[in-house]
Amino acid sequence: MAEPPPLPPLVDHHCHGVVRRDLGLGSFEPYLTEAHAPAARGTTYFDTQTGFAVRRWCPPLLGLEPHCPPARYLARRRELGAYEATRLLLRGTGIGTFLVDTGLPGDLTEPAELAAAVGGSAREVVRLETLAEQVADTSGTAAAFVANLAEAVHTAAQAAVGFKSIAAYRYGLALTPEPPRPAEVGRAAEEWLAARAAGGRIHDPVLLRHLLWTAVATGLPLQLHTGFGDPDLRLDQADPTLLTDFIRAVGGLGTDLVLLHGYPYHRQAGYLASVFPHVYADVGLALTHTGARAATVLAETLELAPFGKVLFSTDAYGLPELYVVGARLFAEALQRLLTGWVEEGAWAAQDAARVAAMIAADNARRVYRLP
Amino acid sequence: MAEPPPLPPLVDHHCHGVVRRDLGLGSFEPYLTEAHAPAARGTTYFDTQTGFAVRRWCPPLLGLEPHCPPARYLARRRELGAYEATRLLLRGTGIGTFLVDTGLPGDLTEPAELAAAVGGSAREVVRLETLAEQVADTSGTAAAFVANLAEAVHTAAQAAVGFKSIAAYRYGLALTPEPPRPAEVGRAAEEWLAARAAGGRIHDPVLLRHLLWTAVATGLPLQLHTGFGDPDLRLDQADPTLLTDFIRAVGGLGTDLVLLHGYPYHRQAGYLASVFPHVYADVGLALTHTGARAATVLAETLELAPFGKVLFSTDAYGLPELYVVGARLFAEALQRLLTGWVEEGAWAAQDAARVAAMIAADNARRVYRLP
Amino acid sequence: MAEPPPLPPLVDHHCHGVVRRDLGLGSFEPYLTEAHAPAARGTTYFDTQTGFAVRRWCPPLLGLEPHCPPARYLARRRELGAYEATRLLLRGTGIGTFLVDTGLPGDLTEPAELAAAVGGSAREVVRLETLAEQVADTSGTAAAFVANLAEAVHTAAQAAVGFKSIAAYRYGLALTPEPPRPAEVGRAAEEWLAARAAGGRIHDPVLLRHLLWTAVATGLPLQLHTGFGDPDLRLDQADPTLLTDFIRAVGGLGTDLVLLHGYPYHRQAGYLASVFPHVYADVGLALTHTGARAATVLAETLELAPFGKVLFSTDAYGLPELYVVGARLFAEALQRLLTGWVEEGAWAAQDAARVAAMIAADNARRVYRLP
Repeated sequence: MAEPPPLPPLVDHHCHGVVRRDLGLGSFEPYLTEAHAPAARGTTYFDTQTGFAVRRWCPPLLGLEPHCPPARYLARRRELGAYEATRLLLRGTGIGTFLVDTGLPGDLTEPAELAAAVGGSAREVVRLETLAEQVADTSGTAAAFVANLAEAVHTAAQAAVGFKSIAAYRYGLALTPEPPRPAEVGRAAEEWLAARAAGGRIHDPVLLRHLLWTAVATGLPLQLHTGFGDPDLRLDQADPTLLTDFIRAVGGLGTDLVLLHGYPYHRQAGYLASVFPHVYADVGLALTHTGARAATVLAETLELAPFGKVLFSTDAYGLPELYVVGARLFAEALQRLLTGWVEEGAWAAQDAARVAAMIAADNARRVYRLP
Repeated sequence: MAEPPPLPPLVDHHCHGVVRRDLGLGSFEPYLTEAHAPAARGTTYFDTQTGFAVRRWCPPLLGLEPHCPPARYLARRRELGAYEATRLLLRGTGIGTFLVDTGLPGDLTEPAELAAAVGGSAREVVRLETLAEQVADTSGTAAAFVANLAEAVHTAAQAAVGFKSIAAYRYGLALTPEPPRPAEVGRAAEEWLAARAAGGRIHDPVLLRHLLWTAVATGLPLQLHTGFGDPDLRLDQADPTLLTDFIRAVGGLGTDLVLLHGYPYHRQAGYLASVFPHVYADVGLALTHTGARAATVLAETLELAPFGKVLFSTDAYGLPELYVVGARLFAEALQRLLTGWVEEGAWAAQDAARVAAMIAADNARRVYRLP
Repeated sequence: MAEPPPLPPLVDHHCHGVVRRDLGLGSFEPYLTEAHAPAARGTTYFDTQTGFAVRRWCPPLLGLEPHCPPARYLARRRELGAYEATRLLLRGTGIGTFLVDTGLPGDLTEPAELAAAVGGSAREVVRLETLAEQVADTSGTAAAFVANLAEAVHTAAQAAVGFKSIAAYRYGLALTPEPPRPAEVGRAAEEWLAARAAGGRIHDPVLLRHLLWTAVATGLPLQLHTGFGDPDLRLDQADPTLLTDFIRAVGGLGTDLVLLHGYPYHRQAGYLASVFPHVYADVGLALTHTGARAATVLAETLELAPFGKVLFSTDAYGLPELYVVGARLFAEALQRLLTGWVEEGAWAAQDAARVAAMIAADNARRVYRLP
């Protein structure tokens, strides 16, 4: 049997902080799902591909046998304490660099804490909608909002390695592709601010487009949520092909677009990455949520997408366990696929090793201009 | 090699009666396809995954070798007689409980006959559109129709274990999600009855929504046709994601929605089952029609859908052979997938056995409140 | 292990000419992708499934080891000269009959040259949009255009074996299904010709529908581009289910429709082929562009599509290498799938051999009425 291609320390180009406090069964389980509600009567979110993947990969990192019962695992986790358990788990991921979307609420670890846990590095990805909502909280007028937002994006671009948009959640991806005119933006901002309570979310499509184009102007890579996620979105409105006209409009400006997740439209994302030089496809979240099926889902992304356009991520959020399963499922799936293709003669071993390093780290280093 | 997880007697939560008369080549073949027309010149519906699956699994149950020619199989079937052949075939399915949609026309077996053939049990699922058309046949006015329909649904709910909607066929799933107002329903009923010949089908979207909401009010599980079927539907209008707003509107009312079939949008159905506690996903029909590919199609459903949300069915109709292939393909596919995952270490053997029983029977028992 | 089912000389029912001149790295690489632009900074189109498949299958036909570096391969190719390299490559495909879409621009080989290279035969498929644009170039008035077009289609039908439409590129497939009325066609022709520079493309949906219906009237098979292609199309507008109403409108007229490519909507194409007797599904292009994944993509097409409705093609264009990978990937994928199904007992060996011959050649012979 062929040797699996070796992997460098992973660059996780899209992830989030983890909770700092100790968790019990009831507070741990909700992080295993994208649902907002408790599991249906007679069911549990542990009985999912994600739940089984956590039980496969995580207990051994805390000194337990794989697939031990959730209650036993969580008892051990509390025994160690969240801090130590997080450290042990993160060290088992093989991740060296975290690009962290810091736009989620809650008492979550900072990028630097993730980096410290693995002796690696971390950089920030700024979520546009969160930034706009923060700016709105402190802007008295629409004009001030527009000016402050421009400044905030500009400032963010100095430190961050990229931006992220969740327009898929807030409106869907069937947005008018062109940048809105300033007068339109002003009017939309006025209406939004007038109707808005503090902390209110941004949903207006004109403002969402304004955010996208403001980010595009910085030249930093722009991550776009596509495909599945929590029930705030309508899945069919998150099909990445709906972005086609926006992708065309951005073409030639020098800004790269990274289509996150994509599932179950990840083949469509792969197509877009194949025909538009500035479009990239991510494999995060989908692998974590499909568990034993991760190799197939990854393989589907690797059909049309050029291998220089595919990026690893975990999209981990809340639980360090999701870093473990995201990274382990990815590494195992990639190595299994590539080893198989080498054994069949479809790929050369040298190419397999090169492509593995590209997807694991090199592509992200190039796109996000990391050292 | 790991032992395949054992299966309990199957609960087929969505199926239909079978024809009682003897069948020849020309009358057997049309049941192998969802098409309404004869096969194209030079082709036959026996040359399909379904046809090959019938030839694999059924001849041995009638004392012939697998894959014998169709003519030989049908000769043996006629020799035994339809009654005896049906009994032998149904006993080879492993099904113990049938939940029968009785809304299809033709001289088909009753639920009790299916139950008797296997020494098992059967319950009824009431097809809403058929019920409404029967009520329309005997209602003189729109007001009478509306009142009689309410009564008919209420009465049906006493005996049935669930309702079924084929709105996907009659209008598509992009229905306005909210229940229509009584005045709208009255007007729509008036227009429909005025234009209707006896037996005429219900297509009006207001009336279809009224049926859905009347069924939801009973609290019984509601099965919704999604995905492929016969050419009366437009496949893209049967994408289950089009139901998202209806699913949201039904949330919290205590009624479960079961998305039937789904293929080729079964991953989308799995997503909906993963984020909405009251949504379930079915694996019927798709397995029968994909034959040698059934394990992959089932695996795709088992990516996002929580294992407590997936239900076995055959959607068999007309031929007892379709019960055989639906059940055998399911059992073989499930056992192959789960055994593989156990051998890889992705799943624990004990979990595999538990999940197999859930999908084969336990989930349906819980959802349909069976003894 | 079971013997792979033998294949007859392949009928490639959809392909294009190849360039006659010698190619270097820079002129070869663009043919590996559907993109119009150079590969993104730091990437190359050789790092794709297509690129790896070319490097697997083609070097041995020119006397080199598989997977040798692109530069080495192209040096050898120039050493042999384009003419000799093309001959060696085409002879390695196993193709005996080429049905060539001659509607692409550039200095490409004629059908007869392809045939001569393999000692086989070739026939022409006429691209409707190219024909209409040629007619427009030489028609002074709208009335003349309409009359000349009718004559041109009629003449083409005498020699060609079929027509092809790229309406998916020019407008999308969500066309009004019925034939446009003559007055509409006249008005649309007038507007198009008035605005048109010589060589200008046809995009008007009325004229595109007129082309489709003019072709349907000849009774020859009509190939329709569906699914992925170059970035001139919007992928979601090329979903073959959008053709459903057109397919229904054509039903019963005696003209067959062949849905090309389909990916990533090839399961949808398989569905349409399963329920409409006059609809066929192609496996070309998708296999070439998915390389090591070709067996899975082919298997997905073979889920619902009756085996008498599936047709092999390469969709090769520009490079003889694309004939090699299209044909080799197809043959290997088909034989691997069928051998596997026979070994599992799902299919009989005799059926596998019969189905292999059907998809490789017999179905195309019947549909295109080849000797």
